[in-house]
Order: sequence, then C-alpha cells, then structure tokens
Amino acid sequence: MKIEKVLNSRINNMDFNNISFGNSYSDHIFCSEFRNGKWINPIIQPFENMMFSPGSLVFHYGQAVFEGMKAYKDKNEEVFLFRPEENFKRMNRSAIRLEMPTIPKYIFMNGLKNLIGLDRNWIPKNYGQSLYIRPLLIATDVGLSVNPSNDYLFMIMTTPSDAYYKNPLKIKIEEKYSRSSPGGVGFTKYSGNYAPSFYPIRLAREEGFDQILWTDSSTHTLIEESDTMNVCFWLKDKLVTPLANEKILNGITCKSVLSLAKKEGIDIQKRNLSVSEIIDGLKKGFLKEAFGCGTAVVITYFQTISYKGKNFYLPDLPDEERISIFLKKRLLDIQHNLSEDPFGWRLKLEKIL
Amino acid sequence: MKIEKVLNSRINNMDFNNISFGNSYSDHIFCSEFRNGKWINPIIQPFENMMFSPGSLVFHYGQAVFEGMKAYKDKNEEVFLFRPEENFKRMNRSAIRLEMPTIPKYIFMNGLKNLIGLDRNWIPKNYGQSLYIRPLLIATDVGLSVNPSNDYLFMIMTTPSDAYYKNPLKIKIEEKYSRSSPGGVGFTKYSGNYAPSFYPIRLAREEGFDQILWTDSSTHTLIEESDTMNVCFWLKDKLVTPLANEKILNGITCKSVLSLAKKEGIDIQKRNLSVSEIIDGLKKGFLKEAFGCGTAVVITYFQTISYKGKNFYLPDLPDEERISIFLKKRLLDIQHNLSEDPFGWRLKLEKIL
Repeated sequence: MKIEKVLNSRINNMDFNNISFGNSYSDHIFCSEFRNGKWINPIIQPFENMMFSPGSLVFHYGQAVFEGMKAYKDKNEEVFLFRPEENFKRMNRSAIRLEMPTIPKYIFMNGLKNLIGLDRNWIPKNYGQSLYIRPLLIATDVGLSVNPSNDYLFMIMTTPSDAYYKNPLKIKIEEKYSRSSPGGVGFTKYSGNYAPSFYPIRLAREEGFDQILWTDSSTHTLIEESDTMNVCFWLKDKLVTPLANEKILNGITCKSVLSLAKKEGIDIQKRNLSVSEIIDGLKKGFLKEAFGCGTAVVITYFQTISYKGKNFYLPDLPDEERISIFLKKRLLDIQHNLSEDPFGWRLKLEKIL
Repeated sequence: MKIEKVLNSRINNMDFNNISFGNSYSDHIFCSEFRNGKWINPIIQPFENMMFSPGSLVFHYGQAVFEGMKAYKDKNEEVFLFRPEENFKRMNRSAIRLEMPTIPKYIFMNGLKNLIGLDRNWIPKNYGQSLYIRPLLIATDVGLSVNPSNDYLFMIMTTPSDAYYKNPLKIKIEEKYSRSSPGGVGFTKYSGNYAPSFYPIRLAREEGFDQILWTDSSTHTLIEESDTMNVCFWLKDKLVTPLANEKILNGITCKSVLSLAKKEGIDIQKRNLSVSEIIDGLKKGFLKEAFGCGTAVVITYFQTISYKGKNFYLPDLPDEERISIFLKKRLLDIQHNLSEDPFGWRLKLEKIL
C-alpha cells in the first residue's frame, strides 16, 4: 500500500474540547479503485478534494453504500476498534444488494488499520468520545444509461466524534411517510435511504420532535427503526427490539447491546412490535424505557413518544435506575478497554506505522 | 451569466452514425451554486472533471435529484425544446420532497437555453434522434451529520441520444422486489430511486427479460411503472395507464402521449390497474398492446409480459396497426417540427449565442 503523508497536519486546528459530529475530517483518507473487475491502487493520502466527472453515476443514480464504525482510546492511549469485521461484512451485504463489487477483506482491514494507525492522534481521549470511521463505496463510471457502474471508488475517512445527541429525545411515531418497504433496501446502509427522510424529519422538528420512529410503509402499525439508530423498548421487564428484516438495518450496536443484556440475565426479545403495544404500554405503565442505539448515537433514551398528535411521557427515572444508561456504560467500558471483553469484540490496534 | 467556451471542441470525436445513449457529453456544462440561501455564480463552462470533497453529503446520504428532457432539430436545423417548463416544475417538486432548495425559473431556463444554443452542433439531425438534457441538483456540504445540506450545485449537461431500446421488450411483472412505497419518494426523480433496481433487474435479465414491470410494494397486485418509463395498456379499446400517485413518476412523455391519444378520439383512462386485469387481458385477448413511454425511451412496445414464471405473448401486429407506433410518430412529428403543435409544446430556441 502506498502512503502519502500530509506535509502539515491540520490537527492543531481541531478543538478537542468542542467536538461536533462529523465536521472535521482527519488528515488522511484511504482509497482503492475497482477497475476492470480488479481492486487496484490502495493508497493512504491527504484528505482533500478529488476530481470527479459531473457525469459520475453516483450523482445521477445514487449507487453508493457506506458504513459507520468507531475507534476508541483507553487510559494508556492504546487504540481499539470495535467489531470491525461486522462492519466489513455488512458493507459487502449492502454492496451486493446495490449491485456493486464486494470489497476484499485485506483491502478493507489493511486500509482501516493503517489509516487509524497513521491518524491515531485524531482519536479523542475522553470516555464516550471516539474517532468515527466512515467507509464509503461509490460508482464512478461516467454515463447516463441506467445501469450499474463498472468502476468504483472505495474510501475510508475519519472524524473525531462526541455524543451525537446531547439530550433525551422526543420521538414521533410516523403515520404518513416511510423509510423503507418490503422488497426494498432498508436493511442496507444505502446512501439513498437517508435523504428521503430529511423532509418528514423537518416536519417533525417543526412540531417539536427530535426524530421519527418509522413504521411499516403498508399499514404504519409496526415499529421499525429511527433512521440513525435501532430502537429498544423495556416492556414488561423484557428488552424488546423489532426483528431485523429486509426493512430494518441490522445494527451492530443494537446487536451488541442485546448480547450484553442477555449476559446480564435480562430477557430479550427480537420480534414484531406493534405501535398499539407501545401505546398500550405507555398508557398502562408497562413501558418503562425506550431508547435508540447505533454507532453514531451509542445509546440515547427517549423522553416522550408521540402518536396521533398525543404526547406520551416515559417515566422520569434517575440514571442509576435506567437500563439504557446501565447498558451504555457496559458497552463503553468494553469499547474503552475499562472492562473485560467476554465476547472478543475489541480489536487492539498494534502500532504498525 | 459567465460563459467560458472550450478551446478545442470534442465534436469531431463524436460518431453521429453510432450514437449510444449517454456515453458522450457535449462540450459545455451549465452550473450554478446555492450558498447562504442564494443562487450564485451561473456559468457555462467546458464539461470536465470538477473538485469535490470525499465528505460531500451527496456521496453519503444521497441528496440528489435530476431531470431528463430533450432538444430536437427540424429539417432546417432549427432547434426545439419539448415542454421544458414541465421539467422545470417537476425538478422543483423533487427538490422540495428531498428537502433541497428550488431552482429559480430564470436560472433553469436561461442556463438551459444558453447551453443548448452554444452546443447546438451536438444535436443530431435524424428523425428520432435528439440531444438528451440532464439537469442535476446535488448536495455539496461537507460533513457526516445526517441532515440536509446547506450548499448545493445545480448543473445541466447534455449528450446526443438515439433510441434507448432498439427492440421490443420482454417484461417481467415483479413479485418480490419493489421500487417505491407509500409515503416514499417514487414520484420524484430522486437519484436514490434508481440504484436499488439494479440488482432485481440483473436477476430479471438473467431470466431473459429486458425490464421489470414494478408492482406495489405492499401486495404486488397493482401495476406501477417500469423504472425508465411509465407504462400504457391498450385494453378493450381503451388506453389505460396507472394513476400517477406518490409511488409513480408523473411522466411528461406519458402525459403527452395520453393528450395526443385523447385528441385522436381514443378513450383514455388513468386509474388503478391490477395485475390480474392485465393477465386476464392477455389470456382472453383483450390486451392488444402494452408499451413504455418516457423521455429517454420515447415509446417502446412490449413483446412479452411474464408473470409467475409464465410468458404471455402480446399480439404480433404489423407496425401500421399499432397504436404505440401511431402515437410515437405523432409525438416525434411534433418534436421535430414536422406537424402542427396544437398543444403549444414546442419551444423554439432563438439563436441567442
């Protein structure tokens, strides 16, 4: 792999006391091209603008998939990745559904490790902070025929990250718009799954909500996910999450949270979850907590859930009684190498550069 | 508007005897930027690669909408646009749904007219050929937060075009995958509506079909459209097309075809159209013709329609008995200024440059 280092790092411009999500890219980017059926030219180079044709297929027909993952530091500033193989596998599942080439493991993992090693100074040191890692695969053929691209560009870029949401969320159960559909691509990290939600989310924000809780497109009676996160409900002493299917992203954070809960002896259920069950739980007090989980958001609990214009307030528990806060700490402790790692989720980054 | 002409035109590299769709861009491109809430810097410049950040939102969250329209020449090499205001209006309807700024009419129309005027030599002269015009609006903010962009780039690029499909099509009625959903963005020309169909279309091609006839995502019992075209059926002496709704693109060519048919005294119906009605029509001979219509494909009739693994053959009529061929000629005659234009669809391009 070719490595071209920056002449002047931008790290002194980075304010690590005021990290906002995804606004400052680290010094370097990893790239590899797919041409004539082969992955070629792996390179780490300075993160800067690149040349693209305005006719690139990615602009016109949206052929692009991505991933989201994080690197953490422990107290000794050792660096750890969290379950990177899960992201690698999911990226390729997305690529297959979007008719794109899969990425070989050595390209993905070597690119990742070398990039994070080189930009390790960009990883924030505080508990709950991390370096967010964005693998991205885009179609680069130039043309207008509605067909898959022959050529692609795979990139990995990174950005220091703090908590995505600062406060408990006000969530609206969506009754009109939809995020995905049966036979669609909701289970993938397809770029085109995101922009269509901007308009309904803006409408929800104007009504005072932070996010939308998506329901099924056919009947709006089943809970799905919340765009940047999967959702879990603490319902009758069980931790319930909608069954991951073709319409719901198979979240790595959510999966990990459920494994942690199970290990603690908590009864977990992955199953169809109806809106009426949630509303019933809110009315009768069976629903004690509801929260979103995802790589960017980690775990963020909901303060209110709104349905058909009515706000339902979740119990105002102290943090020490919250299962969401308990599981978040368990997860972050593993990620920051503060506790045992019984599942083997941490990948320690050796100093390779 | 600033105009930077190419020093050396690429037109001599263009083989006008072998035009394939969308592979050769004309010399120039029109661009205008949206920044701080204002449309600025309108410019016509040479079509060439541009600088983009790998962190541009369009790559990550797919915020991009486009249009498709055409310019035609008549025998005297006068240039005509076909219903450009319809494309302008639809582009802005798409932009609104994708939470993007609308484009002012003077930016769109002046950019369009000046660009086509400057590259008028790129418009093929033969009947049925044209210059395909691609307006495109993309998000250019750099960042990873899942939010609409503040900055955008609007472009218009063009490419000489011939028939998109050379032969009658073999169509498969889709029973598993879906293109759009209730509450979704199927009615827009959203880039992200296209790449998800590449995989199911590849599967269909491997079974010997050319294209998919999409059905509703909830039940797969209602006919929708066919990705690059709307569909019309000549059923019991009526021309029937699925009612344009939030799941179906409101096609300008289809609308024009229906207006032409109506003017000829043909009974037209825009309504819900079930798969069973089509299959029944095929079995009992009520369905005489089926065809797709769209800007790129113009009008292309279907040879076979397949459903649940069974191929149904449409009647093998001579061209002079086909309503599709009749309407296609009526449409092209108007577009190429060979007949009266009773609807006022043609916009003659004055020699402004």
